[in-house]
Formats: sequence, structure tokens, C-alpha cells
Amino acid sequence: MSEKPIWGEDYDLVVVGSGFAGLAAAIEAKQAGASVIVLEKMRIPGGNSAISGGLLAVAGSPLQQREGIEDSPELLFKDMMVAGMDLNHPVLARLVAEKSPEILEWTQTFLGVEYSDNLNYLGGHSVARTYATANGTGSGIIKPMLAKCRELEIPVQMKTLLCSLLKDDSGRVEGVEVRRDYLFPNRDSGQLQRIRARRGVVLACGGFSRDVAFRMTQDPRLNEKIDSTNQLGATAEALVLALQAGATPIHLSWIQMGPWASSDEKGWGVGSMFTLLAGFPYGIMVDAKTGKRFVNEGADRRLRTDAMLITDRIPVAIVDSEGVKNATTLESCLKRGVVKAFGSIEELANFNHIPLVPLQETLERYHLSLAHGRDAEFGKPLAADLKPIEHPPFYSIRLLPKVHHCMGGIQINAQAQVIDIADHQPIPGLYAAGEITGGVHGASRLGSTAIVDCLIFGRIAGQNAAADI
Amino acid sequence: MSEKPIWGEDYDLVVVGSGFAGLAAAIEAKQAGASVIVLEKMRIPGGNSAISGGLLAVAGSPLQQREGIEDSPELLFKDMMVAGMDLNHPVLARLVAEKSPEILEWTQTFLGVEYSDNLNYLGGHSVARTYATANGTGSGIIKPMLAKCRELEIPVQMKTLLCSLLKDDSGRVEGVEVRRDYLFPNRDSGQLQRIRARRGVVLACGGFSRDVAFRMTQDPRLNEKIDSTNQLGATAEALVLALQAGATPIHLSWIQMGPWASSDEKGWGVGSMFTLLAGFPYGIMVDAKTGKRFVNEGADRRLRTDAMLITDRIPVAIVDSEGVKNATTLESCLKRGVVKAFGSIEELANFNHIPLVPLQETLERYHLSLAHGRDAEFGKPLAADLKPIEHPPFYSIRLLPKVHHCMGGIQINAQAQVIDIADHQPIPGLYAAGEITGGVHGASRLGSTAIVDCLIFGRIAGQNAAADI
Repeated sequence: MSEKPIWGEDYDLVVVGSGFAGLAAAIEAKQAGASVIVLEKMRIPGGNSAISGGLLAVAGSPLQQREGIEDSPELLFKDMMVAGMDLNHPVLARLVAEKSPEILEWTQTFLGVEYSDNLNYLGGHSVARTYATANGTGSGIIKPMLAKCRELEIPVQMKTLLCSLLKDDSGRVEGVEVRRDYLFPNRDSGQLQRIRARRGVVLACGGFSRDVAFRMTQDPRLNEKIDSTNQLGATAEALVLALQAGATPIHLSWIQMGPWASSDEKGWGVGSMFTLLAGFPYGIMVDAKTGKRFVNEGADRRLRTDAMLITDRIPVAIVDSEGVKNATTLESCLKRGVVKAFGSIEELANFNHIPLVPLQETLERYHLSLAHGRDAEFGKPLAADLKPIEHPPFYSIRLLPKVHHCMGGIQINAQAQVIDIADHQPIPGLYAAGEITGGVHGASRLGSTAIVDCLIFGRIAGQNAAADI
Repeated sequence: MSEKPIWGEDYDLVVVGSGFAGLAAAIEAKQAGASVIVLEKMRIPGGNSAISGGLLAVAGSPLQQREGIEDSPELLFKDMMVAGMDLNHPVLARLVAEKSPEILEWTQTFLGVEYSDNLNYLGGHSVARTYATANGTGSGIIKPMLAKCRELEIPVQMKTLLCSLLKDDSGRVEGVEVRRDYLFPNRDSGQLQRIRARRGVVLACGGFSRDVAFRMTQDPRLNEKIDSTNQLGATAEALVLALQAGATPIHLSWIQMGPWASSDEKGWGVGSMFTLLAGFPYGIMVDAKTGKRFVNEGADRRLRTDAMLITDRIPVAIVDSEGVKNATTLESCLKRGVVKAFGSIEELANFNHIPLVPLQETLERYHLSLAHGRDAEFGKPLAADLKPIEHPPFYSIRLLPKVHHCMGGIQINAQAQVIDIADHQPIPGLYAAGEITGGVHGASRLGSTAIVDCLIFGRIAGQNAAADI
């Protein structure tokens, strides 16, 4: 390390990753007067953020006020801790809950993001508090963020792979070595170049859900046969570099499967949003083998996934025309055959090979629960606007859990500084935000808390790194 | 790294840690003709191994044969995977199960270890399969191992702290930097010295149960108020060095609490063995507040601990004179006041502030379960030799879960080679065994599988490192 590197370029901040966290960091840093570049290894910007569901949990929002729903950051914090089995780092989780109204406002006022006019009641949440982007995906936020980067003249440089974190003699991260014109996944493509980061490097390059070899070290069951909702670039190289640089690994073995993904398409697809916004909250999930429900459709992701993965179970979600009103992706689901529509429950049962009589009994029992306002059998929280599943057309979607989110990653503090494993102090010049970090979500992430997490800590990382001299 | 280190001493193998794994590695290496030194940072050898319960799970043993108990490595493997929530690396877990009879034989024939003449039926195991050393602690194995080291002229050097793992230009671990005359926990004490390891370094220096700062990064609940059964030297320095050298961290957030520890003494004490061998298998555990049982006393450690930690619960185990026949530490428990003896259930209830009538009802229900051969309420497996708790004196022990075992650590393969996080290949010259490794036990370790784990992988590490040129 004693030979001085020759820098090809020079910025105050180098941000690695062009999703929610990375773009938020870059925008904040630039606004604070720092020069900044965003590096993205793939051919297009946005990573998983762009293909995500675009859902934001907000504790205390205008829509909640309109609907008369009482909520508080404390309640969201508690929900996050329950799902996280109390493994969450409380300081980080609390920050997400507290700043969620501010971040919603920032996306609306500063970025001009548009949201649907209704709230969603997602599994594991105590109340309905989830906003959805008007276009039903995270691109509804990523596109305005990219426009803001152009406006602020922040370069977002594609096909650039992080290869090394460079430290000076004092141990401070002073820059990065990258491969430019990198063609994923060819590790030998492109040319090496060094970029100096005078004030800091922000790692905002996501999780490792698509990195089969890495994820199998943490959970040997997640072999190549298990699909993922993530884009192909969700691999572990940058995480490994951070760990090699002394970052503290936390909760790496907590890898979340998404219970709402469909077996009739690859990846996240269009079906996941359908199940999230219609199938689970307004419908029921049954085992096609038995016609019976088997889990609270509103439970947290871990509980639902564990129940769905029991051998030989074939989970199918069923909902009717009343229940699909929030389902932003219904049309594309029908077009691609991921969701099927039927004129009657008989036809639906027949197509899905579900025994009819048990299914009818299941529906009757569920409707009785609705009438009583309490799901005695599985404890699903029943929203006030829930109606019996009896208005054709009826819709079904076949489900299969897929690797969705890495709760674990590198440890940060409330300033988004990366924590050294040896002395539990910040590694000078190194920041991180988003899915590459661990601790916010503990053992299991609540749905719709990832985007707020990414935006909040991305902004914090950008602000603090810009002020880091 | 380009300047050649000056070596103070020179061995084929440097073994760090003088517990089961380290001594097993050293003995095997020396027998294979390698020169070897064992380094121990504390003032006395044996680490946690010496103060452990001395319990070995063996699948297919002479005692099982005598008792007519059918068992197999496959069944032990399955029990380990169930407790481990399938996060175990199957290759490693299977090896422990398969080699358990061989390791028992090795300790008896080669080391001369003496065991009690009866099997123990521990929580989470499908059958009674656990041997206990005749003296009721791990020292019953550590002492013969130390004697073997003297016989083989293996130096076991106390007060020597590992400070660095030294790699040559090719990335091979070629030695260690240590502090000699180190006085735990003073990190500045002693003198630096480098020891060359021509064939390999074996890390066998245990878990981090006593390292509050480190364990809190993984599980923020485990603060300084939570006691541990471990010796004070169970800290994370060597684990950190291994991770800095590129080892793969796995399952670090899975930290096991021991459900059988007593609130009336510090650490592991004498009460843990009493609860393990008498209180849980032959008695019941009630909440002193209610007089009622609340969990299967034979469940795995995680389930019992979770149930015991519910706010305001005061767990007390109760057993009678028939149930304490295997309790090797009964006398010392009584002498130290950790276990109390009473002439009647009334006196026991009175002393422990347990409401008498509910406690009597609990006992009646439990005795009814014994008569029916099935614990319908909590599913405790009822051994054939279980008798009603009705023969005075009656014994009680107050319980409090304490941090006991770190399931997580660095990844090894079946050859005990440490796996690099970047390429998932062995780090040349680096081996590990015992609690510093992760993967064997997954999410939760079954009782009495640690010693077999340590001895088996310690021997493998020693054999393979000795042959590593």
C-alpha cells in the first residue's frame, strides 16, 4: 500500500450502486456541494429498486389521516422488531420508522413521485400504512431520481464493476479500483481504473439473493434450483470486498423468501404485486391438494414461507373481482397467464386440481370469520373493507416462494458509517446504505420497509460523506 | 508483506487453543510425525472444554446396545438438522454423526477416558444416547489429553495470545505473530514474537460467548447484563483475525442460551449439570408465578430458552430423590445452595413462592401423563424409567438462561480447511475446528454434540495439516 495509487479520476464521493440508496446518497451529496459519481455494474441503472414493487410503509401519513387510521413511528418500530425477532439493531430500525413520513414527503415534493390514492394493508403490519407508486413498480421512484441526477449533473456510469476498496496508510478508504466497460458477468471484461474518493465511498450495491454460491454458505438449502425475485446482478462481490476491508458481517444467514411469487413465471415478475395487493389481503391461500387454508395470509414473510415450503404443499391464492381493485398488475398478469380468471369457483377448482367440496367449505368458514370480524382459525387481521369472495370473475395464482431479500450485510451506525469488526469503530471514509447493510430488519424484513430504509440511509450516507473531511 | 518475517520459533504446525479441538489436532499431528506447538492465551489450559459438562452424544454405542436402544448416525444427523432448522452444512453435520462411535472409542482406548455407566436422554434427541464422563465435567477428557501431550512431548504454552495470522506472498498462512507472557485481558502485556508454521495453523480457540461487544453486533439483546456459562477467555479476537484473513463468516447471529443454568450462581457453575441430568429429564420445570409447566422440558435449547425468557416468568425445575440418581454434581449443588432439598412439596413450594394448589395439580397432571406414557400437554418424550415425582427429599433449582454456545463462526470443509469468502476455496495453510467454526450445528446446537464435534474436526485438522506440504 505504500506506493501511491495513480488516480484516473477524482471526486469527493464515489457511490457504488444506482438503486434507491445510491441515487439518494448522490443527490444529497451533490446538493451539499460535493462532487460525486455513481458507478453501476449492470448495463442499465436502478438495480432491484427499479423492478421492486414500489411500496413504502409510512407511519403517520396523509392517507392514514384521511382514512382515520391511527398509527405512529413507535407502532411501526414494534412491528419491525416483532418480524425481526428482536435481532434488529434498535437504533437503525427506529430511525426508519421515525423518518418514514419525512421520506414520503421528500419523494413527493422534491422528486415528484406519484402514488396511488389508496393505502395497502400488508402482512405483519398492525395497520394499513403502505403507499404504492402509481405505476406499481419502483421505477416510479427510480425514474424521477435519475432525472434529478441529470438535472444536478451527477454522472451515473454504467458497466463499471467495483474491484477493490483502496485504503491509505492510515486505514482510510481513499478510493476504488474499478473495471470500466465491464460486461456482466464476465469478470475479465473491461479495463482497470482507479477513482479517488476524497471524502468517502458509499456502498449501496444491494443484496446477494442471486449469488447461489454465496447464499449457500449461509443457508445450504438455497441451491441453484431455488429462483429469486431479484435482478441477475444481485451478487456478493462488493459485500465481499467490504468484509475483506474489515467491515462487520451481521445476520448474513437471514435470507428472506418472498411468499407471493408465482411458479408460473421467473423472478419477481408481475404476479408478486398481484398477490401482495390482492391475493393475500383480499383473498385466501389454500393448498391445492386439500382445498384448505394453512396459514394466516397476513403473517410475516418468514411464517408464511415456512408454511408454504412444507413438502408437497401446492399454494394457490384465490380472490374475486371485488378484491382486485388495488391490483396494479392485473392486466399484465392475465396477459402472461400468471393469473387466471374464471366464471365460477367450480371452474377455478377444476383448473387448479383443488377438491371442490373442501374448497367450498373453506370459503364458507372464511366468510363466517368475516361476518364475525375475527379469523379464529389462523388469526389473519381482517381489514374493515373485506368482503366475501363471491363476485365473479374469480382469480387464482399459483405461488412458490423465491429468494427475495438479504436481511444481513455489513454493520452501519446511525450515520451510515461502516463499522470495523476489530474495534467496533467506523472505518474512515466508508459508508453504506440499503440492502448491503444488515441490522435494520433483524431476522425478517416487513414488506414495504425496504424502500424507506434505502432512501433514508442513502440520504444520511450522502449527507455525512459530503461533510467528511 | 514483501519483507520476510524473522521467525522466533519454527514448527510444522501451530495450534491455537488448548481445548478439545486444539489438543486433538496437536495429538494427531504429532503422531503423524509433525512438530507441533499448542498456544493458549489463558493461564491454565483447557478453555471451556475443561469446565464443560463432559457429555458425548454417540449414535450406536455399547451402552445403547446393552440397553436395547436402537439408534443410527442417520437418526442423530436428523436430530441435529431439526434443531439446526436445516441451516446446518449437511456434510459437516453428517460427519459428526457418523464418526461419533469412533470418537467415543478413541477417547476410551487411546486416551483412557472413563464414563459413567448409564446413558442420558437429553432434550432434542430422539433416543437416549449421551455418555457423561465419570467426574461429570469435560476435565475428565482434557486431563488425559494433556497427559497424552506430555507423553508425546507436545509443548502446550500458556499466556500466549494470537495477534496476527501471517501470509506469504502467495496468500498461504505461514505463521503467526503472538504475545508471549500475555496476561489476559491486558492487550498490551507480553512481548511480540513470530512463530513459523511450515505446514499449517489450526485455529481451535472457541466461541465468543463472553465477548459482549462482539455478540451484541450479532444479537443486540445480549448485553452486559446477560451472564454466560463460558470461561472469561471466550472472546472474539481470533475469529476477527480469521475473518480479516478472508475466512467466510457463517451463522454468527445464532448464539445459543443454555436453558439449564441457575440464577443462584455465576457462569456454568454446578447447577447446569444438575438440571441437564436430573431436573429436565427426570423432573418438571414450572413457572414459580403460576405453578404451571410451560414448555416441553425435553425440547431443543432454543425452544426452551424462548419460553423461559418470556417477561416475568420465573423458571424452577423440580425433581425428587429417584430423579437425581444420575446427577453427578448434586453434592456440590447442595453445598453451594444452588439446589435446595425439601422434605415435602409444601416446603418446596413455600420456599420458592410457588402457589401450592396449582403446583400440586401440575404434578398430578404430569403423573397422569407418565401413566399414559404420553405428555399430551407439552410433548415431552417420556423415558421408560420415568417415575412420579413423589419420593422425598424433593429438590428445586431456580433457572436463568445464559449465553452458552456460538453456533456461528468461520466456514470449514470436511477436511477442516478454512474457506475463503471470495472464491469459496480453502485458504492455504489455515485449518479450524470446534466452536470457532460454524455450520455443523446450524441454528441451534443439540446438547452433547459439541465435544464430538470438537474432537472429530480437531483430529481431522491435525491429520490434514500434518500432511499439508
